[in-house]
Amino acid sequence: MPRVVVDVMPKPEILDPQGKAVQGALPRLGFSGVLDVRQGKRFELEVAEVSDAVLADVHRMAETLLSNPVIESFTVRVEDGQPA
Amino acid sequence: MPRVVVDVMPKPEILDPQGKAVQGALPRLGFSGVLDVRQGKRFELEVAEVSDAVLADVHRMAETLLSNPVIESFTVRVEDGQPA
Repeated sequence: MPRVVVDVMPKPEILDPQGKAVQGALPRLGFSGVLDVRQGKRFELEVAEVSDAVLADVHRMAETLLSNPVIESFTVRVEDGQPA
Repeated sequence: MPRVVVDVMPKPEILDPQGKAVQGALPRLGFSGVLDVRQGKRFELEVAEVSDAVLADVHRMAETLLSNPVIESFTVRVEDGQPA
């Protein structure tokens, strides 16, 4: 079954407290070398078939339901049906 | 700056209430054709350079901090530095 992935991330200019919290924890766990961390959401939508109409629908879902366009940006891409 | 992306998703056998909530809302918003929705987390880690050691570190971060291995699985991949 084809899968459409919607990745929703905070816009670069928006403060990302979750990302900052993760970044702050890394040195305490002995990790170094990570300059920045941003955390967002990943949606995997299983669809019967992939067509321009379905992708247009997914874009509208992303704009209206899956993301907050004021503070988030999203990307839509088709992935093969393999489990992530 | 190279970026490493960690995608964390609920394991297939684990109930995904957030995904079910989104799936339930789609028909009410006039969307059809989506058979299943799963929601997870996406982390973008900016690193100074990508090496085997850095990727091994990121895997350990994913196992210990970014995911709960009991109910979640994760994938790690390198992305070019373009904004998502």
